[in-house]
Amino acid sequence: MVPHLTTALTGPLLQLEQHILEAQPRIEHWLRNQWQEYGTPFYASVDLRNAGFKLAPVDTNLFPGGFNNLNPDFSPLCIQAAMSAIEKICPEAQRFMLIPENHTRNVFYLQNVYALATILRQAGLDIRVGSLLPDLQEAMTLELPDGNSIRLEPVCREGNRLVLKDYDPCAIVLNNDLSGGIPDILRNLDQPVIPPLHAGWAVRRKSRHFAAYMRVAREFSELVGIDPWLVDPMFSTCGKIDFQARVGEDCLAAQVSDLLSRIGAKYREYGVEQEPFVIVKADAGTYGMGIMTVKSPDDVRDLNRKQRNKMAVVKEGLEVSEVIIQEGVYTFESLNDAVAEPVVYMIDRYVVGGFYRVHTGRGVDENLNAPGMHFEPLAFETPCSQPDSGDKPDAAPNRFYAYGVIARLALLAAAIELQETTP
Amino acid sequence: MVPHLTTALTGPLLQLEQHILEAQPRIEHWLRNQWQEYGTPFYASVDLRNAGFKLAPVDTNLFPGGFNNLNPDFSPLCIQAAMSAIEKICPEAQRFMLIPENHTRNVFYLQNVYALATILRQAGLDIRVGSLLPDLQEAMTLELPDGNSIRLEPVCREGNRLVLKDYDPCAIVLNNDLSGGIPDILRNLDQPVIPPLHAGWAVRRKSRHFAAYMRVAREFSELVGIDPWLVDPMFSTCGKIDFQARVGEDCLAAQVSDLLSRIGAKYREYGVEQEPFVIVKADAGTYGMGIMTVKSPDDVRDLNRKQRNKMAVVKEGLEVSEVIIQEGVYTFESLNDAVAEPVVYMIDRYVVGGFYRVHTGRGVDENLNAPGMHFEPLAFETPCSQPDSGDKPDAAPNRFYAYGVIARLALLAAAIELQETTP
Repeated sequence: MVPHLTTALTGPLLQLEQHILEAQPRIEHWLRNQWQEYGTPFYASVDLRNAGFKLAPVDTNLFPGGFNNLNPDFSPLCIQAAMSAIEKICPEAQRFMLIPENHTRNVFYLQNVYALATILRQAGLDIRVGSLLPDLQEAMTLELPDGNSIRLEPVCREGNRLVLKDYDPCAIVLNNDLSGGIPDILRNLDQPVIPPLHAGWAVRRKSRHFAAYMRVAREFSELVGIDPWLVDPMFSTCGKIDFQARVGEDCLAAQVSDLLSRIGAKYREYGVEQEPFVIVKADAGTYGMGIMTVKSPDDVRDLNRKQRNKMAVVKEGLEVSEVIIQEGVYTFESLNDAVAEPVVYMIDRYVVGGFYRVHTGRGVDENLNAPGMHFEPLAFETPCSQPDSGDKPDAAPNRFYAYGVIARLALLAAAIELQETTP
Repeated sequence: MVPHLTTALTGPLLQLEQHILEAQPRIEHWLRNQWQEYGTPFYASVDLRNAGFKLAPVDTNLFPGGFNNLNPDFSPLCIQAAMSAIEKICPEAQRFMLIPENHTRNVFYLQNVYALATILRQAGLDIRVGSLLPDLQEAMTLELPDGNSIRLEPVCREGNRLVLKDYDPCAIVLNNDLSGGIPDILRNLDQPVIPPLHAGWAVRRKSRHFAAYMRVAREFSELVGIDPWLVDPMFSTCGKIDFQARVGEDCLAAQVSDLLSRIGAKYREYGVEQEPFVIVKADAGTYGMGIMTVKSPDDVRDLNRKQRNKMAVVKEGLEVSEVIIQEGVYTFESLNDAVAEPVVYMIDRYVVGGFYRVHTGRGVDENLNAPGMHFEPLAFETPCSQPDSGDKPDAAPNRFYAYGVIARLALLAAAIELQETTP
């Protein structure tokens, strides 16, 4: 089952997919050379939006959850890519500690932890799960609905090493995005921490990522001969926003206005009849808290108390003060009338699968990764590495190849971003 | 469909599989470290024999044919591994020339060339097929039964570069094992040749490979706590054999006798009731020509003219003068009473699939890779990277994991062998 693209594919996207298909050897060659220059992130997931006329990333997660949503047929790809990643980052290591988010009741997330631990185990590592839960005194076993279980063990610090009881790991794998800041227990460790601490939201900024992405997208677009806008969402930022105290509204309204008119100009250029919109979100943070869909500068001036509260905090209570205003990209993929948004997963430099978030209750211009939101995952049936030049540009293997290419551009942007922010 | 093991699995092999399963993280860690030391061959296939009481490689091919026999579901694994191999060996390269064997009528082999070219193409390379056929003046298109076709182009030498018409490749991939010697046109090229020329049978010796394998098997066996014999076929060699002139028969008979008695001792140690046998084959060469199954020293003394002729030449007329006498390993896997022998495929350091040679007309102690032989390929249904420690040691995923481990030991031996023979 592959979601249906509801736009008539006569416009630029068909050209885009055609260009990507034709340039495949050049694209792969260019990516290979880029990876000679930049260290590959250990893993990542990228949220894409396919507007028919435009295909672009809107979020890049360096601590991806959702490995449980991938097609189990592609597990060997994950294992092989994990072997490659481990070989690059710490070939000497054998015992790893996996540190997940502090969720103990989110079954979906726990299934992700189980899936990730299984991949790493099958890649040939000893894996135990260390928890940062402040009140965890003893190992705790969490049962999953599928009969599997996860054993969380309290993390201890011994000198500059992080250990579990009778277990001194060679390296720490984080599946915790550090939204609440970098805990002291993780600082100045002798063991490699993967991904590095500065990949967490305590340090990362979406605007830095998309600034790097813009440079990547420009170079890529020159390579394949397209307008970079077709793969790149425009954005700007406002610092010093205080939604509660209504500080910074003018800056925000001005940026929204400017971005909407720039999007409008592009829509006119390409004959797109939809109404431009932007997404306002915290520059640092994840999990879809503090996200607004905005179609007019007035939308950000007339926030009621509830909307202001919603925007004022993100995950783990991090206060929003810097925001990114990003071009909204319409979602024109649907499955039985439900909006479907692709998420592409990568380990090392390899695309290892992906899934659609299929959500019935939301519009084409809304953020699906929102608090309390429920989606049905629909695993990609086809890998992203087998384009078929003999088939139509929008045939499933070719569409997924294009998704894999754009996701890897975002991965490359993340690599550049991490290099630039290395302490 | 997984072939049935006809031996009662109560003996050492069950222990062997159990040991391999339990040691999985240690094995993968050890292999990772080995690959830090030795360059991985570009690709390889390894013929295994599963005797129930023993699991061992009997041949390692560094120019594997048969990619068409792999499970198409695992193509993404091949593509990903090829990306990794290319990144290591020649990341700058974009245009490759593939040089196959000079077969134009062997449809099975041509389907392999097509499958291999497709893998390399999907890994992001421009691929054209250059032929060493001496009488090829113009490009020739060979149609395959499945509707695909291969275009063979005559190879030209321009200075120290190998080119095709309007095509100057960055690197040469050989799928030609150079049994007939190294053609002058391939010598001293500026372009990388992958695998290197000394991986061809003009230079390689099986005895050098199995000497390296013996060292690898010893270290591995110490790691997992087993008798190395359980994974290692014993062997010896005779130089200066002339089957036609009946020179060297005494050496051969003496070595056969010695090896049979050493195998007999091991069989007694493990309570194996089968009759020991050895395989006599050319130390250089492939394609199963010049191979004899021998159960007594008398067998090599009483060769009739036909047998002598058969042993005297191997592929492309290379004369046999050095032979290897290798412990025969019984084949105790069968499918509907047909003997089934696993072949494991690797690209870079990754196991990417495999298949069984299923042959009805031959015995458990005969070589299935013989001239004119016909086998039915049966692709592995399960990848070799997903052992399930919760299942029985001989469950399919675990059996295939063991196959992948032993095949990688042979790959490592080939890497050591290539390093030692680098000109």
